[in-house]
Amino acid sequence: MEKKEGAIPNATAKRIPLYYRYLKMLEESGVSRIKSKEFSKLIQVPSATIRRDFSHFGELGRSGYGYDVGYLLEVFSEILNTKVEKRIALVGVGNLGRALAHYNFKKNENLNIVSAFDNDPNVVGTKINDVMIQSMESLEAIIKKEAITTAILTVPSLNSQEVVDKVVAAGVTAILNFAPGRIKVPDHVKVQYIDLTTELQTLIYLDENFSNAKHMVG
Amino acid sequence: MEKKEGAIPNATAKRIPLYYRYLKMLEESGVSRIKSKEFSKLIQVPSATIRRDFSHFGELGRSGYGYDVGYLLEVFSEILNTKVEKRIALVGVGNLGRALAHYNFKKNENLNIVSAFDNDPNVVGTKINDVMIQSMESLEAIIKKEAITTAILTVPSLNSQEVVDKVVAAGVTAILNFAPGRIKVPDHVKVQYIDLTTELQTLIYLDENFSNAKHMVG
Repeated sequence: MEKKEGAIPNATAKRIPLYYRYLKMLEESGVSRIKSKEFSKLIQVPSATIRRDFSHFGELGRSGYGYDVGYLLEVFSEILNTKVEKRIALVGVGNLGRALAHYNFKKNENLNIVSAFDNDPNVVGTKINDVMIQSMESLEAIIKKEAITTAILTVPSLNSQEVVDKVVAAGVTAILNFAPGRIKVPDHVKVQYIDLTTELQTLIYLDENFSNAKHMVG
Repeated sequence: MEKKEGAIPNATAKRIPLYYRYLKMLEESGVSRIKSKEFSKLIQVPSATIRRDFSHFGELGRSGYGYDVGYLLEVFSEILNTKVEKRIALVGVGNLGRALAHYNFKKNENLNIVSAFDNDPNVVGTKINDVMIQSMESLEAIIKKEAITTAILTVPSLNSQEVVDKVVAAGVTAILNFAPGRIKVPDHVKVQYIDLTTELQTLIYLDENFSNAKHMVG
């Protein structure tokens, strides 16, 4: 199958990792076919959206028979490039960084934290899960040498812009940022924010004020 | 100021915690007035959206003079009920749960993890950050007794539905769920998912395929 870059709408593109993830779960449970209605229930995305999204990828199934899970997985796996290792740098090895290094996306064999950095001399030189923690001074050289383009930042907001400038200078183009402060990046760099406090505050606020409408995200 | 429940559009409601957070940062930096254009740059939300959102809360500032940060904070603080303590239960004290317990939303004095639960006998009875870790068997009684309505789940996907059923039975109506699997809840319960792997996969996918359009979330 040929990948048609840019032909997939952005909203569809964002749902592909979610689709992939659930199809993987289905395959692992021995499910080989699924109808859009059932899939909709499982992942809590409207079935019309699923059908429209899937229509961008050609003939994936006949109506009434459901979609072929294995074939969908092949298609999405190719789109997501899951057979190619993504080498990731983790910057900031406090409690959250440590948890991420332990977790290391184990279920996704292609997502791999290969380098970790911190400015605490007590942790530099130690290992978590086979990943050596290295000094901030060595960050730029290592990221360049390892050709890493993705970084996860769990540094305090106060330092985040400085760290961002460093990783971007070293060649990083994708940043998953856990610090709540907004950061500035050049146009070619993508940033995804995960702000746990805001997520929690939003949830509680919606729970207290919109108690009849179910709120779904993701 | 009276809170007009239901009068605020859902999309606006979801942005209030973000607004609140940044206004707080501005106040701490000594900023007392801000124009929608400057605020827009800071939080990366279009200024027209900000003006429209703020218009739901009455006369917050005169055009040309900018918004009064202190007054906005008062308004949003009341909407978000930030002066009332939100008592939170943490279920699952593995690496991620441990990191969250340490973090405990310190900058937001009203968000408070007051109980933690795990099924590992080695951690039950120990404390993190003054929070006692208790057994899963005691979960229902403690959540009921403490009148906790918000829970953060960091349990494996395999166990998450079982745990969800327990916390919901105990009276929880808001769940922040870190397990990737979708969970089923009654209509009155709100769920917010944070799926780190999907966030990372989406980010990398967008970085690799849509390199000219900056992707912003939050």
